Amino acid sequence: MTWTEPRRVAVLGTGLMGTSIGMAARRNGCYVRGFDVDRDVLARAASHGGLEGAGGLTECVSGADLVFVCTPIAAIPELVARALKGAPDAIVSDVGSVKADVVGGVERAVADASRFVGGHPMGGSELSGPEGASASLLDGVAWVLTPTEATSAEAVSGLARWVGSIGAEAMIMSPGRHDRMVAVVSHLPQVASSALMGLAATEEADEPEILLLAAGGFRDLTRLAASNPHLWGDILVSNREALAASIDQFIDRLASLRELVLQGRSEEVERALAEAKTARLEMAAKPKVRSGVAVIQVPVPDRPGVLASLTATLGEHTVNIEDLQIVHSPEGGRGTVHLTVAAQEATLAEEALAGAGFEPTRLA
Amino acid sequence: MTWTEPRRVAVLGTGLMGTSIGMAARRNGCYVRGFDVDRDVLARAASHGGLEGAGGLTECVSGADLVFVCTPIAAIPELVARALKGAPDAIVSDVGSVKADVVGGVERAVADASRFVGGHPMGGSELSGPEGASASLLDGVAWVLTPTEATSAEAVSGLARWVGSIGAEAMIMSPGRHDRMVAVVSHLPQVASSALMGLAATEEADEPEILLLAAGGFRDLTRLAASNPHLWGDILVSNREALAASIDQFIDRLASLRELVLQGRSEEVERALAEAKTARLEMAAKPKVRSGVAVIQVPVPDRPGVLASLTATLGEHTVNIEDLQIVHSPEGGRGTVHLTVAAQEATLAEEALAGAGFEPTRLA
Repeated sequence: MTWTEPRRVAVLGTGLMGTSIGMAARRNGCYVRGFDVDRDVLARAASHGGLEGAGGLTECVSGADLVFVCTPIAAIPELVARALKGAPDAIVSDVGSVKADVVGGVERAVADASRFVGGHPMGGSELSGPEGASASLLDGVAWVLTPTEATSAEAVSGLARWVGSIGAEAMIMSPGRHDRMVAVVSHLPQVASSALMGLAATEEADEPEILLLAAGGFRDLTRLAASNPHLWGDILVSNREALAASIDQFIDRLASLRELVLQGRSEEVERALAEAKTARLEMAAKPKVRSGVAVIQVPVPDRPGVLASLTATLGEHTVNIEDLQIVHSPEGGRGTVHLTVAAQEATLAEEALAGAGFEPTRLA
Repeated sequence: MTWTEPRRVAVLGTGLMGTSIGMAARRNGCYVRGFDVDRDVLARAASHGGLEGAGGLTECVSGADLVFVCTPIAAIPELVARALKGAPDAIVSDVGSVKADVVGGVERAVADASRFVGGHPMGGSELSGPEGASASLLDGVAWVLTPTEATSAEAVSGLARWVGSIGAEAMIMSPGRHDRMVAVVSHLPQVASSALMGLAATEEADEPEILLLAAGGFRDLTRLAASNPHLWGDILVSNREALAASIDQFIDRLASLRELVLQGRSEEVERALAEAKTARLEMAAKPKVRSGVAVIQVPVPDRPGVLASLTATLGEHTVNIEDLQIVHSPEGGRGTVHLTVAAQEATLAEEALAGAGFEPTRLA
């Protein structure tokens, strides 16, 4: 019955995602053991995330109900094979960003892959390493599971239930479908960001002042270019067919916009931009998969002490502030604060703020 | 001598940028009159920014030392011509995002364009309209001036000095050079962002769940796609030659990455990503053009009341918080707060925080 409610969880690779999964499992009452070939990383995961560090892979997975392989993708098939062997009763999963290549690798590496379910939690952080890990990284995120014909239906449903129990949303689809979608919304953005940054850097050799003219939009588009080149190089190459198709589609759109611009067809350019704008606003307006938090907007005068009064009010009512952003603070005018709080504390927060003379509005 | 120190400023078009320029001028002791064909926009600029609303263009520019045309680019040449006529002693400038087309338009429209200096302050905001305006929008930003052979040297130096006096940094270059640089760092990002969002929206018709798999990176890359299609359509078409060349260069880079990926040449893909990463990190590390503020990092335990204590400490010492961001808040662990304060208040803020038991570190 361990598949119905796995309680003993092993994590191989205790970086950001492995440690976060371990922390979410512990929060949910599971017993969690971890292993990492980098002993320093493992020690930091134990210290930050409370995982019990194991001396080796075999010790780590021994007796586990559920094993997560959270390493770079090149290492996944072999580690899954060893986990299936070392934990003969466990469901084994991974968190690799590409699925067809990884799942195919596993199915070639073992005679019976029925207990293996490919997975990809769509959460992340700009941080890396165990110190950046947090159980909340997985709250409400879409967690894709990619079974094949070789996968046991019980393993899939057991893992899906567990994923739901720690607060994420399981989405079941084929490896190929996952890979085609992430090619568009994850891998292509990485390529576009790196290509744009590379182009600007080349231009900078001739025009040393060019980046002084780069504003927030350029920074937004090139933020991803600072990602780990080794991890991403492997991911892009592993998803080569779907990614190449996405790049082709992207190039087609760019070339068609280029023609409209060059021919001075303003109305058609405007129409293309307007369609993209509509889609972007619809995306922003859609209920986020991430749940459990509320955003409250509060207008505030821009002077010393106001934030103190606002945060003190929430502190007195023991509302914890998950995030606070000052949206703009025009000089001498009014600023706007966006407060993020736990959903169950949102009403309390609004009442407390209103009682202290603020005018809170719930945004989400 | 009004060109040495212009004090009477007129703003034509009182949206975000026009009103911000007016507010920066007023902060600096100038007298500011504004006009907008949309009377409602003008009234809001007067109310939010303190501009004196004029009944028409002629009344607005009459007697001015300095006129800024802050309208969409299609309207600029005609309005500059009328301003040059209506304010016979003034320097006249504009804030259009494209310069060769606009400056050429002005020089074709008037017999003597010597008092006109094309301009482009590289500041902005995600907000629009007079309510989003702020004098601080221009603090420390690069403000490009694009004189030609027809421009009087005194007009250029007078405007450059004024731009410096309100806290921005004047950069003087040719219209063509400005346009080539913004094609890469501003117009191409807009095209890429809209093309990516358009592609994902088209895919969504077949794969309704695709945007559930879109994480922060996709959101970063598509944020610009929500920009105003009408304004941007005009900008892109006005800079058609330089933009088409940038799109071509971008497509070349994408196509070459596509080939490397498809051929499985991981090391070369990794090298391209690593070069872009290095350039991105160097850009982030460079001293920002924006000056006058300091960022202080403060580790905080993640529990109710901590932010209140932090902000109360600063309030007691009358330090105004320009911005406050909670960088991450792992459950049960430590969060990190990034505080932005005026540079001259940074030391006071650090001492006050240290005195209250926090451990502040100056980041910038």
